[in-house]
Amino acid sequence: MEIPSLYLERAVDQFSLLPGIGRKTAMRLTLHLLRRDREDIHAFADALTELADNVKYCTVCHNISDEEQCSICANPQRDHATVCVVENVQDVMAIEQTQQFRGVYHVLGGVISPMDGIGPSDLQIQSLVERVEGGGIKEVILALSPTMEGDTTDFYIYRKLAGCDVRITTIARGVAQNDQLQYTDEVTLGRSIVNRVEFVM
Amino acid sequence: MEIPSLYLERAVDQFSLLPGIGRKTAMRLTLHLLRRDREDIHAFADALTELADNVKYCTVCHNISDEEQCSICANPQRDHATVCVVENVQDVMAIEQTQQFRGVYHVLGGVISPMDGIGPSDLQIQSLVERVEGGGIKEVILALSPTMEGDTTDFYIYRKLAGCDVRITTIARGVAQNDQLQYTDEVTLGRSIVNRVEFVM
Repeated sequence: MEIPSLYLERAVDQFSLLPGIGRKTAMRLTLHLLRRDREDIHAFADALTELADNVKYCTVCHNISDEEQCSICANPQRDHATVCVVENVQDVMAIEQTQQFRGVYHVLGGVISPMDGIGPSDLQIQSLVERVEGGGIKEVILALSPTMEGDTTDFYIYRKLAGCDVRITTIARGVAQNDQLQYTDEVTLGRSIVNRVEFVM
Repeated sequence: MEIPSLYLERAVDQFSLLPGIGRKTAMRLTLHLLRRDREDIHAFADALTELADNVKYCTVCHNISDEEQCSICANPQRDHATVCVVENVQDVMAIEQTQQFRGVYHVLGGVISPMDGIGPSDLQIQSLVERVEGGGIKEVILALSPTMEGDTTDFYIYRKLAGCDVRITTIARGVAQNDQLQYTDEVTLGRSIVNRVEFVM
């Protein structure tokens, strides 16, 4: 497809570098932008420039932040003795959304995945170990996705923290709310029976 | 969902203004960008700024262009007596892709759609009439989508050009290549029988 403008083509190229966006969608998005006011396109460009220049990562938990410490780590009301280990920033937001956790986080920035060439040294695992060794942490909650890679990473962290005086827990796995039992996979269902808990009204 | 960074939130806001992109996808795209080098984000921002500042519309056919006249209108090899009327820039690219058309274009910038508040004065119809009245044009091909709005626009243009000494044609409508006859809608199938053409080997 020959694009009639060099500038249009460059913008389309940039959009099509994004995940899940092909050339046709990129063209549709760019032409949609062009139909808006020029100031709107400038606002988009400015937002990206500011994103590139200003976003930091919390020096404690590696969550995205505008300051040296994120709002969660800087909050004295949170329970700093309980650290929830998650894969990425979205997971922090998802757990915060539940309003069920008052502790703090540690964002790994991914999970161990030899297929994608991601090893332990590419993740914030060493900094987690140092954080725990620094003292003051009573419990580390492993809250990674229940996948092969997540389980591998869980196991690796468990081994790394073995010498530390800290309780290591993992989030409950079982049948999800509103799931139909008959369609639940057998590993999940089997585990949910083995790991049954006391019925509470 | 509480976003931990103001700059992240602003970029997410901009992405979610695009068609078909919700908050969750916008967040995914922005975090994907953040994982790339800062220079890559700047390149994206620069592409958008240049798009806003530099893209022009051809003064003859209203196609997107980097110059006063687009490369098609400026090409003396093209047949300037045959003007193909299309809805938008993508349609120009789609027809160019077929390599079956050596004439020039006229981009309306939409179709008449009272439901969306788009009337004839919002489109490049008056400029088409003036272009035809200017002389030198022998045929106007109406190549709008075969929808209610496209048909209305076809009819409106046909009426507007009624007094001009110009042949007005419309692209063939019928059963698409590789379509199964039994699944073709009856309007299309009926019209393809009425408008049958001589068999050519």
